[in-house]
Amino acid sequence: MRASRYLIATLKENPSDAEIVSHQLMLRAGMIRKLASGLYTWLPLGLRVLRKVERIVREEMDRSGGQEVLMPAIQPAELWQESGRWQQYGGELLRLKDRHDRDFCFGPTHEEVITDLIRNELKSYKELPANFYQIQTKFRDERRPRFGVMRAREFLMKDAYSFHVGSESLNETYEVMHRTYCAIFDRLGLDYRPVEADSGAIGGSASHEFHVLASSGEDEIAFSTESDYAANLEKAVALAPTDDRPQPSEDMTEVATPGQTTIAAISDFLKVPTEKTVKTLLVKAEAEDGEERGLVALILRGDHTLNDIKAENLPGIAEPLTMATDEEIRKATGCPPGSIGPVKLPVPVIVDRAAAHLADFVCGANREGYHLTGVNWERDLPLGRVEDLRNVVEGDLSPDGKGVLEIRRGIEVGHIFKLGNKYSKAMGATVLDENGKSALLEMGCYGIGVSRIVAAAIEQNHDDRGIIWPDAIAPFEVAVVTLNGHKSPAVQEAGEKLYEQLSQAGFDVLLDDRKERPGVKFADLELTGLPHRVVVSDRGLTAGTLEYKGRRDADKQDLPIDEILPFLQNASPRRGH
Amino acid sequence: MRASRYLIATLKENPSDAEIVSHQLMLRAGMIRKLASGLYTWLPLGLRVLRKVERIVREEMDRSGGQEVLMPAIQPAELWQESGRWQQYGGELLRLKDRHDRDFCFGPTHEEVITDLIRNELKSYKELPANFYQIQTKFRDERRPRFGVMRAREFLMKDAYSFHVGSESLNETYEVMHRTYCAIFDRLGLDYRPVEADSGAIGGSASHEFHVLASSGEDEIAFSTESDYAANLEKAVALAPTDDRPQPSEDMTEVATPGQTTIAAISDFLKVPTEKTVKTLLVKAEAEDGEERGLVALILRGDHTLNDIKAENLPGIAEPLTMATDEEIRKATGCPPGSIGPVKLPVPVIVDRAAAHLADFVCGANREGYHLTGVNWERDLPLGRVEDLRNVVEGDLSPDGKGVLEIRRGIEVGHIFKLGNKYSKAMGATVLDENGKSALLEMGCYGIGVSRIVAAAIEQNHDDRGIIWPDAIAPFEVAVVTLNGHKSPAVQEAGEKLYEQLSQAGFDVLLDDRKERPGVKFADLELTGLPHRVVVSDRGLTAGTLEYKGRRDADKQDLPIDEILPFLQNASPRRGH
Repeated sequence: MRASRYLIATLKENPSDAEIVSHQLMLRAGMIRKLASGLYTWLPLGLRVLRKVERIVREEMDRSGGQEVLMPAIQPAELWQESGRWQQYGGELLRLKDRHDRDFCFGPTHEEVITDLIRNELKSYKELPANFYQIQTKFRDERRPRFGVMRAREFLMKDAYSFHVGSESLNETYEVMHRTYCAIFDRLGLDYRPVEADSGAIGGSASHEFHVLASSGEDEIAFSTESDYAANLEKAVALAPTDDRPQPSEDMTEVATPGQTTIAAISDFLKVPTEKTVKTLLVKAEAEDGEERGLVALILRGDHTLNDIKAENLPGIAEPLTMATDEEIRKATGCPPGSIGPVKLPVPVIVDRAAAHLADFVCGANREGYHLTGVNWERDLPLGRVEDLRNVVEGDLSPDGKGVLEIRRGIEVGHIFKLGNKYSKAMGATVLDENGKSALLEMGCYGIGVSRIVAAAIEQNHDDRGIIWPDAIAPFEVAVVTLNGHKSPAVQEAGEKLYEQLSQAGFDVLLDDRKERPGVKFADLELTGLPHRVVVSDRGLTAGTLEYKGRRDADKQDLPIDEILPFLQNASPRRGH
Repeated sequence: MRASRYLIATLKENPSDAEIVSHQLMLRAGMIRKLASGLYTWLPLGLRVLRKVERIVREEMDRSGGQEVLMPAIQPAELWQESGRWQQYGGELLRLKDRHDRDFCFGPTHEEVITDLIRNELKSYKELPANFYQIQTKFRDERRPRFGVMRAREFLMKDAYSFHVGSESLNETYEVMHRTYCAIFDRLGLDYRPVEADSGAIGGSASHEFHVLASSGEDEIAFSTESDYAANLEKAVALAPTDDRPQPSEDMTEVATPGQTTIAAISDFLKVPTEKTVKTLLVKAEAEDGEERGLVALILRGDHTLNDIKAENLPGIAEPLTMATDEEIRKATGCPPGSIGPVKLPVPVIVDRAAAHLADFVCGANREGYHLTGVNWERDLPLGRVEDLRNVVEGDLSPDGKGVLEIRRGIEVGHIFKLGNKYSKAMGATVLDENGKSALLEMGCYGIGVSRIVAAAIEQNHDDRGIIWPDAIAPFEVAVVTLNGHKSPAVQEAGEKLYEQLSQAGFDVLLDDRKERPGVKFADLELTGLPHRVVVSDRGLTAGTLEYKGRRDADKQDLPIDEILPFLQNASPRRGH
């Protein structure tokens, strides 16, 4: 492609409404433009990246045995009523009426449509397992779209749905998809982690998320320093300490702590590290038929944080997790929140595994303005129910016993689920099994946010000059820059020749033949993140050299003209594919 | 692809709601399934065809210098209000509201969005010409969707928009797109014609349609036997006869024609050929400020038909063309419609060129139950205004003077327009020209119905056994059929080997390894239209041969095993690409 005939729509200034770096850089590099809130046009340079991501996803899905289909974006309400989601789905479902006043939606997902198709088409276990996928435009009417294509309303997604008789077959395909997703993200050239995810809300029995690691990510992921274990923070198990709890060495003492109501303040005031304190959180108990709901106390080490999902999944605790109000706390304990503690608390207590391992700890005295020091379980108060209540922290033991946990931030770009028979049951999707009996289909579903990957790749790969594309998804792999080509026929000719040579060798090449100053060209190429830059200049031609600089390189280097092709073939990992 | 792991969803019966052959065959061959009225899911076999069409369109658009973009399906009402189309566009525009009650539509076309983009991005004539295209899902809320994907509500379209300073540049790109469309339809392997089309309604200055020829087509196309001239029937010029009008040889005579009110009846009753009669059609005149609209009489030869578009484009005639009611005819002429004629008609008369060439003709006498015979222009009545009013017929001279016209039916699959400044004017899209002055952009737009092409290809290429794909868009080019492969390991092994060999040579191969009877496999392969079939059997292996049959062949033939690859390479035109 010749840059002189191509829309290079770079911007110097950071757009004021772009909050995250990928959004800023996609606008500045001329990859996207906003049409309306959460709606973006992909400009030529951006679309090249999107199409490369799409192609890699398609090739690996095909390789895995997936069959590509294409379902309509517009879906009839009847199917969503059948599954129950027409009512359940909130404002994110874009509902609309056609000219005959019939209800439809712009599909955010296609479980209903594919289940309807399959219940009509497949009759026998002999036709299974089968895995159907599509790469298709979806719509989610976000209340507050933001972050560019990272959380757009209209987006490109790969969604796949597998069908099975029996969970063993589902498990097999689930494993195939897990491997396929790894192959996809490997080929994309991204640093990613498949992590165990909570599947409670979806109603399935297993679920993994695939995260692109980036410090700007919205999600926290815990993973082992010495094994493949990885889970999102919600799901990561905090093991109980393996050694014995230390013996008590202090007496329990009530001390005045006037005005000190936070862990940090108490720790400071009493000169005790936060990890020797406990905090007491009161939450609503699970309702029992018609009764007023009581409270439950959750005890955590002062330096730990409550994991809401773990807590609400426990029997006896209301779901969703609901913190008691100050009013309710006073009513139940006779004391304000900043001074409560587990000793003689008139509320059932659940103790986190780490808090249960403390000796000589500090806690509220259940008396305003006082705390207790030197408190010990079983000596000063009973240690009743112990559970995993907290978020893991760096340095915790890995739940699989190998290594310790590290925590990194990630951007969720893929998700695989075992759906089980949730949809097949609601919609009556059955086939005849080996015994000629009707069997409900087991289903898996497997999503990848194709357009989101583009943004996530930038969050992970950029510097203060712009984007740094992995070769596999760069809009162009190589930029050939002619310096003052409009003045020097020799430079222009050598540039054209190199452009042809590299293109014929299979590289996606941008020939920057624009009548711009070198500084403008270099800045644009760095902003747009092209991995390899080759400069053709009069000075170089005289010396028989071209100047090469990789996007991540600190220095440029001169290479003999006929060494540039083998050099690039060696430098670009995609060539090996 | 192995058929045993692929959704071959063929149907034996013709679906009752499919009216045309492509719709029937796409359902029967398992290419599509209906989700709701005008909404279709593309099954794996159908999607392979769609993607091949899409790829050819993309490659040729890229080759022509087009820059691919991707605009949102959902568009804000504001832009449509700016162009005026929010009000003008009828019920086919799917209007909807988002969760914040803002107005949007599901775009049936993208003139507004691209014009908005370009007015923001481009500043100077130096950045022009530029041609942006997308291949994208569109929605047209047809009142009565029918014919499957031929006239679906949701469909896949390639739309392109070019921008220029000055009409010369627009003309150049228009010609490039004309050539590009020819290259696309050539590669698709379809019999097509680019035809001149009426561009009045769109407001542009030139327009061509691209039609796939098929006897089931909705449109009629006239083209020359001896030149490239082709136009749709609306547009094809009917030349005036070049010889002199014959001299009168009969006297004008009034004859009683009781109860004879149609041309066919009069011709029969008077034993006069229809081409010696004229018919008189009364239509509304163009309104002049506030006045009651009068009538105009259009005179055509009895065997010719009125061309509405030609008529309404004439000065003095109301647009849209509006026929006078019986009541209005009686009021204006004192006579019912079946007996009116041009002699002494108290209404202005416009005579078609062919009718103006008649001598001794028959027409209504403007007296109920009577006609005139032996009527002659200029002797019996003045010959005033003569115009081209009729549809051409086969055998008419070609307007370019070369050969005569043939008429065939076609399916419109592409359309190119010179839009001029319609949108740039309404939306204020300008750039600075060479003199530093603000210039309104000139625009062209260029559409291809990607999903419609699939149906049109079938309308053109089928027989009573099913579809006959052109190689370039066949879902698979070659079927390798193993006869009783599940019983004969030798057959199975040879089939697998051939499958690998042909796949490696670049063919898209379907290995039909299903445990089905040969008759079932052959019927499926003929229905799904695969161009080349190779059968592996025990009998053949013993003789060292494979059985080949092309989809259009009457007979099969045995070929030595090692000759099959060169044979297919020779037989498949795509291999030459």
